[in-house]
Amino acid sequence: MIIVMKKSATEDEINNVLQKIKDAGLAVHVSKGKERTIVGAIGDEALLGSIPLKAIGGVEKVMPILKPYKLVGRELKNTDTIIDAGGVKIGGNEVVVMAGPCSVESRESILESARNVSASGARILRGGAFKPRTSPYSFQGLGVEGLKYMAEARKETGLPVISELMDPRDLDVLCEYVDIIQIGARNMQNFRLLKELGRVDKPVLLKRGLSATIKELLMSAEYIAANGNDKIILCERGIRTFETATRNTLDLSAVPVLKAESHLPVIIDPSHAVGFWQYVGPVSRAAIAVGADGLLIEVHPDPENAFSDGAQSLKPGKFASLIEELRPIAAVLGKTI
Amino acid sequence: MIIVMKKSATEDEINNVLQKIKDAGLAVHVSKGKERTIVGAIGDEALLGSIPLKAIGGVEKVMPILKPYKLVGRELKNTDTIIDAGGVKIGGNEVVVMAGPCSVESRESILESARNVSASGARILRGGAFKPRTSPYSFQGLGVEGLKYMAEARKETGLPVISELMDPRDLDVLCEYVDIIQIGARNMQNFRLLKELGRVDKPVLLKRGLSATIKELLMSAEYIAANGNDKIILCERGIRTFETATRNTLDLSAVPVLKAESHLPVIIDPSHAVGFWQYVGPVSRAAIAVGADGLLIEVHPDPENAFSDGAQSLKPGKFASLIEELRPIAAVLGKTI
Amino acid sequence: MIIVMKKSATEDEINNVLQKIKDAGLAVHVSKGKERTIVGAIGDEALLGSIPLKAIGGVEKVMPILKPYKLVGRELKNTDTIIDAGGVKIGGNEVVVMAGPCSVESRESILESARNVSASGARILRGGAFKPRTSPYSFQGLGVEGLKYMAEARKETGLPVISELMDPRDLDVLCEYVDIIQIGARNMQNFRLLKELGRVDKPVLLKRGLSATIKELLMSAEYIAANGNDKIILCERGIRTFETATRNTLDLSAVPVLKAESHLPVIIDPSHAVGFWQYVGPVSRAAIAVGADGLLIEVHPDPENAFSDGAQSLKPGKFASLIEELRPIAAVLGKTI
Amino acid sequence: MIIVMKKSATEDEINNVLQKIKDAGLAVHVSKGKERTIVGAIGDEALLGSIPLKAIGGVEKVMPILKPYKLVGRELKNTDTIIDAGGVKIGGNEVVVMAGPCSVESRESILESARNVSASGARILRGGAFKPRTSPYSFQGLGVEGLKYMAEARKETGLPVISELMDPRDLDVLCEYVDIIQIGARNMQNFRLLKELGRVDKPVLLKRGLSATIKELLMSAEYIAANGNDKIILCERGIRTFETATRNTLDLSAVPVLKAESHLPVIIDPSHAVGFWQYVGPVSRAAIAVGADGLLIEVHPDPENAFSDGAQSLKPGKFASLIEELRPIAAVLGKTI
Repeated sequence: MIIVMKKSATEDEINNVLQKIKDAGLAVHVSKGKERTIVGAIGDEALLGSIPLKAIGGVEKVMPILKPYKLVGRELKNTDTIIDAGGVKIGGNEVVVMAGPCSVESRESILESARNVSASGARILRGGAFKPRTSPYSFQGLGVEGLKYMAEARKETGLPVISELMDPRDLDVLCEYVDIIQIGARNMQNFRLLKELGRVDKPVLLKRGLSATIKELLMSAEYIAANGNDKIILCERGIRTFETATRNTLDLSAVPVLKAESHLPVIIDPSHAVGFWQYVGPVSRAAIAVGADGLLIEVHPDPENAFSDGAQSLKPGKFASLIEELRPIAAVLGKTI
Repeated sequence: MIIVMKKSATEDEINNVLQKIKDAGLAVHVSKGKERTIVGAIGDEALLGSIPLKAIGGVEKVMPILKPYKLVGRELKNTDTIIDAGGVKIGGNEVVVMAGPCSVESRESILESARNVSASGARILRGGAFKPRTSPYSFQGLGVEGLKYMAEARKETGLPVISELMDPRDLDVLCEYVDIIQIGARNMQNFRLLKELGRVDKPVLLKRGLSATIKELLMSAEYIAANGNDKIILCERGIRTFETATRNTLDLSAVPVLKAESHLPVIIDPSHAVGFWQYVGPVSRAAIAVGADGLLIEVHPDPENAFSDGAQSLKPGKFASLIEELRPIAAVLGKTI
Repeated sequence: MIIVMKKSATEDEINNVLQKIKDAGLAVHVSKGKERTIVGAIGDEALLGSIPLKAIGGVEKVMPILKPYKLVGRELKNTDTIIDAGGVKIGGNEVVVMAGPCSVESRESILESARNVSASGARILRGGAFKPRTSPYSFQGLGVEGLKYMAEARKETGLPVISELMDPRDLDVLCEYVDIIQIGARNMQNFRLLKELGRVDKPVLLKRGLSATIKELLMSAEYIAANGNDKIILCERGIRTFETATRNTLDLSAVPVLKAESHLPVIIDPSHAVGFWQYVGPVSRAAIAVGADGLLIEVHPDPENAFSDGAQSLKPGKFASLIEELRPIAAVLGKTI
Repeated sequence: MIIVMKKSATEDEINNVLQKIKDAGLAVHVSKGKERTIVGAIGDEALLGSIPLKAIGGVEKVMPILKPYKLVGRELKNTDTIIDAGGVKIGGNEVVVMAGPCSVESRESILESARNVSASGARILRGGAFKPRTSPYSFQGLGVEGLKYMAEARKETGLPVISELMDPRDLDVLCEYVDIIQIGARNMQNFRLLKELGRVDKPVLLKRGLSATIKELLMSAEYIAANGNDKIILCERGIRTFETATRNTLDLSAVPVLKAESHLPVIIDPSHAVGFWQYVGPVSRAAIAVGADGLLIEVHPDPENAFSDGAQSLKPGKFASLIEELRPIAAVLGKTI
């Protein structure tokens, strides 16, 4: 930690800062320049976490040196983590496609979806049973009934399933039926939910928040890891920007950044990112080319009648063609789909 | 709802849209211009909520006409709502100041804080027992023990208390001890938590999310109202922008906008907005001048040793002077503090 | 244009709106719903441009139906525009790579750069002679001298050259020496500069502004076109977001959106987008995969000693390998590099 | 300047960094911690400006210690600058109101506006002759003719006048007719225009860019000052955020921050910030309360027929009442209007 003192800082103020750092158990190092005195705190920065250094008289700014995440960072573990989700390996040489409808709408429709996406090359079935909706008057999902249909679809097709968790009270029932627990963008900083995930032995797909930075995403992953669950899959799904031609702005450069910072697999959700099925194909190609470990794509047999997110859902035929279009790009990177 | 058809839309596509609107129970109105055909759906737009109009062939864009919130909007109720929180009226002629430390740190400190802020003119005591922290390694709050100290401080000083809820499983215990339930910015779209609030008869202070729009804030308030609790206080606490000189950017124009759109009281949190105690005074003056119904200010007897948010906490003496500075501005608007 | 009247709008207010639209030469269409009266203005929306409809009593909101750009839009011209820049075709079947240093630093260095990038497969040489710098104390470019070195490099290597225009007074001298005029992100809405470009017969590469929307980029292109120059190349170079791990956030979904909205070629600048040479490779691959018509890449023989943007410049060897990595991805899309 | 080396940095890489800093004429200071080696560069950071430290092998991050602006900063000059604009003092004890139409529309209308706003208490007349418009098809201003009408209005009413400069070629004619040169938000980083202002002896009102930080605003002011003109008035006019209920988001906390960082006067433009006349009053009150040195308000005798910005223009009667409402708030701060 570097503490820059104000030009006007007094000796007493400087000594006060030094004392606090020493009291926390770190060594100090002082450098007096012409314009500023700079204090270095040497040792474990986490020990300083609870000291409001910026509040101390004479302090101009406080600059952390070390990364705030440990368990999910490459400094601790420099080999790529590969996660087994119901038998499918995520983070290795295969680009894993997860596909299915936004919401589970009925038993028949999810079974049909499962057959469709499985036939086209998807390896995991997605489908929401608990739905976060901005309006209380919108369809809120089938709940546990939806989870049961997902499990039935898995039984029939062999595809592991992923579904979203919104409430800590639903964790156990979710674990009963699904293979991957999805945490949505709006819950990326629902810290109690993240902590709760630490107690189960299920892979978690953690979506980046609407206006979260990469550092904040990794800190949320750190919450899950620090509470005991290291099976974490990161997911970029578009961030909020001023652009309105797309639903969100897909940050594909997050993939190489996350790969450099963390050992965890990184998945792209092109559907929520762009919001219109017409653009899902091109950005899926780009996601493969940039090095993503997988895709999470919304596919619906009849988007015009979907209960949610119809505009961004691919029809099964278009999804099948897309997969064929993606294979040669994966091959260029030495991967398979 | 206005549906603009693409220039290239066929008769069949137009008829398909008309049929879907009629099937939903609304009347239709078609206007064929030189460049575009425009379809108006006349009736309750909520009935169209589940139809993905944007997904339908030939549709270029869909423009809602009506506001998506009802219960919290001025169209339904055009008189200002005044909320009684433990005997203090919020939303009326008095500017209500809520003050106290970021976190409850110990029994002694919260009692001292309560006495201090009460003596200076605060009407409600704030203090966090469950703390949302971006790092799993930071102080997470005293939990229920903290709530008990808050209740003790209320007993001694008579100040009603406000504290934050992060988990639906804590709602009952919170209701036992506090007078206002605070929902933090990161939980503004934690829809399950919002729904849960509908079942209790306690005022809720709902903070605007870090990058939420005013419409989204009102939709989250609508969630609480639609589930049965209409005692909602809105709180602007700064939004995320590119500016880093302040912790967030306080959107004071949100006050007149919220007042025009909604009948609910509006409170300003200057401490989280600016992040440095030096700026809390000027923006508090501005908050009163723009017409806010109250302030939520962090005050700490010893900010240098605060467990959280020390840099933005006022010392009791500064807080007392600030209140004196604010009174004449309130008086100009015909209000008291 | 759709004008939504307030619920409280009077007959007089509605009639006033109707009259103004008729006075502007458009037909009107009125639809009275239960909740709102909606007025449609039928005809050329541009005629309404100078009427402040939102300022008129009783008006709640004004929603344009038609796109504000004409000349650069696909509705006017639905075939892809191919631009000839000194003999190189941009927008066709070849992905055009433009490469070179951020700034022209000396005669020797730009000549060396030109030979290097030409040998690796670049088709156009980039180099800044007039430099927009956020600090008045930073290197501001060699000016006309730099342009002369660019022209010399073209003569030797045969590569057409691109350089940035910042001031309308430099347009003529720039036209004398370069093949493409670059307009930087900070000048995307320098409307006088855009107008000036209308009077010359040189291709213009127009960069998207730091926080500009796609619509605003197209409106700026429309400025150039409306003033007489239709040789416009659009360039996405990253937008400002909250993310700080990269210099900007590259919006690759802008490529399919721009392709859908406009007939103009679209180029990606990965170097300014990500800001670190380590990430330039992966996002360049993604740019090709998403369908971009070309790349604008910073390459410097000695980045550690570059006058500007050293951190994001590739060394010649890395640039050469990157081009080889990109060719098979272009091939998947049926293109060459 | 602090340079943090990567954990993996070699001795050679560290020595290379040290050598470069010494070569630039600064002293170095090395601190080897358990996790990182940290290098301090002691001396004038500007000397390091041209060295791309981030590009050097082994460097993890570079953290400047000193502020990048000098002339406009409080460290150089700690007394408030008061600027004389045609006899009106800006930055002192009087809150200066600048008012008038967005565009000069005709001789009669600007004369009428001048009389109106003068009678109500405005001290400076605003009016645009050169207009930056996002569409090439919108009204672009009367040009020099408009400036002449402004000068005539000054002659009749005695009010100094302010108008916008968009093109360096118009600087001389603008200086002939106006008392303050306005630089619009879109030109805040038009560096050639800023440099040009250095050669004249006229006050400049510099507006903050749409998504500019406070540091960037001050760097643009530094451009003007470094080129020879220190009569600079800063203006906050709202920044772009995700909020659409207002045209922009007024950042009132920028006032105390700018006052802490710089000695220059700070003006608020509430009209462009909120975009609707209904909200101009409340935020103007807040601007005075937060400590602004003045206001720039759009007033139009007939907003429904204004050529531009009608929706945000106050009618003369409303403007007159607003001034009366503002006086007692200014009085609370010990100021006059």
